[in-house]
Amino acid sequence: MNIQIQAQRAKEASYILANVGIDQRNAALNAIADGLEENIDKILKANAIDMEDAKNSGIPVSMQDRLMLSEERIRGVAFAVRQVTMLPDVLGEVERMWERPNGLLIGKKRVPLGLVAMIYEARPNVTVDASVLSLRTGNAIILRGGKEAINSNLELVRIMKEALKKVDLPQDAIEIISDTSRESATQLMKLNDYIDVLIPRGSAGLIKSVVSNSTVPVIETGAGNCHIYIDEFADIQMGLDILVDAKCLRPSLCNSLETLLIHESRADEFLKAMHNKLSEYKVQLRGCDKTAAIIPCDKAIEEDYFTEFNDLILAIKVVGNIDDAIAHINKYGTKHSECIITNDYTNSQKFLKMIDAAAVYVNASTWFSDGFEFGLGAEIGISTQKLHARGPMGLEALTSIKYIIYGNGQCRGKK
Amino acid sequence: MNIQIQAQRAKEASYILANVGIDQRNAALNAIADGLEENIDKILKANAIDMEDAKNSGIPVSMQDRLMLSEERIRGVAFAVRQVTMLPDVLGEVERMWERPNGLLIGKKRVPLGLVAMIYEARPNVTVDASVLSLRTGNAIILRGGKEAINSNLELVRIMKEALKKVDLPQDAIEIISDTSRESATQLMKLNDYIDVLIPRGSAGLIKSVVSNSTVPVIETGAGNCHIYIDEFADIQMGLDILVDAKCLRPSLCNSLETLLIHESRADEFLKAMHNKLSEYKVQLRGCDKTAAIIPCDKAIEEDYFTEFNDLILAIKVVGNIDDAIAHINKYGTKHSECIITNDYTNSQKFLKMIDAAAVYVNASTWFSDGFEFGLGAEIGISTQKLHARGPMGLEALTSIKYIIYGNGQCRGKK
Repeated sequence: MNIQIQAQRAKEASYILANVGIDQRNAALNAIADGLEENIDKILKANAIDMEDAKNSGIPVSMQDRLMLSEERIRGVAFAVRQVTMLPDVLGEVERMWERPNGLLIGKKRVPLGLVAMIYEARPNVTVDASVLSLRTGNAIILRGGKEAINSNLELVRIMKEALKKVDLPQDAIEIISDTSRESATQLMKLNDYIDVLIPRGSAGLIKSVVSNSTVPVIETGAGNCHIYIDEFADIQMGLDILVDAKCLRPSLCNSLETLLIHESRADEFLKAMHNKLSEYKVQLRGCDKTAAIIPCDKAIEEDYFTEFNDLILAIKVVGNIDDAIAHINKYGTKHSECIITNDYTNSQKFLKMIDAAAVYVNASTWFSDGFEFGLGAEIGISTQKLHARGPMGLEALTSIKYIIYGNGQCRGKK
Repeated sequence: MNIQIQAQRAKEASYILANVGIDQRNAALNAIADGLEENIDKILKANAIDMEDAKNSGIPVSMQDRLMLSEERIRGVAFAVRQVTMLPDVLGEVERMWERPNGLLIGKKRVPLGLVAMIYEARPNVTVDASVLSLRTGNAIILRGGKEAINSNLELVRIMKEALKKVDLPQDAIEIISDTSRESATQLMKLNDYIDVLIPRGSAGLIKSVVSNSTVPVIETGAGNCHIYIDEFADIQMGLDILVDAKCLRPSLCNSLETLLIHESRADEFLKAMHNKLSEYKVQLRGCDKTAAIIPCDKAIEEDYFTEFNDLILAIKVVGNIDDAIAHINKYGTKHSECIITNDYTNSQKFLKMIDAAAVYVNASTWFSDGFEFGLGAEIGISTQKLHARGPMGLEALTSIKYIIYGNGQCRGKK
């Protein structure tokens, strides 16, 4: 089907959805969860085709794992959908209302964005997640997933459309683009007349391509070159625990640690303890000269400090003071999640104030940068831009406002 | 100077500015106001060169008027700068802070965007306005004004940089691009590493070009195809007054009226009264067939309903009911400012709810869509997108948030 026509239909559906009450939106979500559970066999069948293709084309095992669905995983997705129905409704709230001297009563009301577009890769669970969060916030959605997951995605969308029909909502509220060519993505990025926001989810390459090519407003997500700074006044054991947590347990995540900075007065003590600990996890170390004088490690080049490894690799730099640490982070970081380990009050406040990042931590793991961990109840993604939403995005990131104005004949020219 | 280097310097200045207190920011604004007043002669001299060039190159008189500075206008700009110092500070507020079950204390703190870029045309007052609003909100700014105003702009920026120096703030916090070629604008639009937001101000063509070409996040401003719907239950005299206010007094503004919709039961009465009234203002009328059967007018073609005339031209359509009016507005409008004239409670609520626009009015002129009229104290522009900011933008539109997180050793892996 023509992509522009799909977008147009989804946009029209969004006008209906924008004024659907919370009960009906929740009914749609429950119908989707039911549909997923009732169609497990069909979903697994479609997914098996994708998995077969993936194996034949020699796709990396890690990507195959993301692509793979099982009965357990599908039930997990359905459970998550029902969880979303428990969240507070973010629509309709009039945050503030005020009267002007001329009597105009002006209110700022929370409304849906309209039509959300999502471009993503080989994770079929994103198909359901993104659709459900959009529906819950009164938005229609148009999906463009990767070719690896196309059979799974088409089946999931068929099930969701059926659920929409059951609760008398327009089926066009969830559209999926079956053409998975590069051209279809590019075309989607130019549909400013219909799409209110485009959210790319996936590799750095995908996100970069969307940011470069989209004329539709984009929320950039993903890149996380995160730091931990071990301050002069750090609790060494706490630093070690948090280091292991942020670096070793889920190194592929965007909120995982990439570069360790250490105050020179604690370098000897910390690095030696760390070296023992990290060797258990087989972390490859790339240190500055001062680091190399204390523990065995590869030599770090400047590029390493700019790099989001997403792997068991750690860049290390010994710094002279907290100001050097802050300057390093603001220069090399991606403004995602940054942490100081310290028991010094002044330094903690300085770090919180001077670091320019979505999430700035004192004495806690950067791995906490997550919508659920923050208590937002859901996560659309983690924004690394400053416009519209920053950091972990909950449901509110899928909304906008409109001004509603009550008058009684006010004219501006003659008052 | 190389544009990238200018942006880099401005970005570095933004880190300093982000942590400058309100007193010093206000001191900068007052120093700028002083500087403008003390340098009136120099500004007028620079502006005279621009005006001479404008006359020689046959620029339209309306554009010459926007370009022209006088002692009175400069004093007006300086006065407006001092007014901005009176506004509440939007920085530093922690909107909300909450504790998680694991003891993490998470706060959402308002911070500057960082580096703002502005691309605009021949209005030298924008040079000062934009710089002052950015400074006040802790942002650095990089300006790219039109070639027509380049001499005025360079002089204004020189004065503002001097003022920054006087109050010990980095002069790089206000940068202006002296190269006014198309290429310099395009280059600016690609500097994602330095610029946090790009705001175009000017003609529809300029804004369209920025939206199409910028990889930096853009706030779209400007386009306003606004409607007034005269409902079945309208007060005819109120409708006439508001129509004149919104259409005739400042037709070139984005919040002025472009299309009138009338319920068929009131068409005869309203159109006849309107015809007499609007002929005083020499408004050209373009009506549907039903309109033409009641008053003399040109025949409207579909294109007219899509058009923002910004002129003394009014498109008119008779509709069968409020639903048709709402459907027309949501189809042809630009989601800027829309108005219903009615004394019917149900219809007023329906219109407020169903119209998708930045500002939806009952019984008041669309000309009120303005930061000052809304009581925001300032106006960066009127956003016509839904992301980040919608409708009239006050100082808060130039801010973002960061999460500040207080922990005491929390790890996510082992709790």
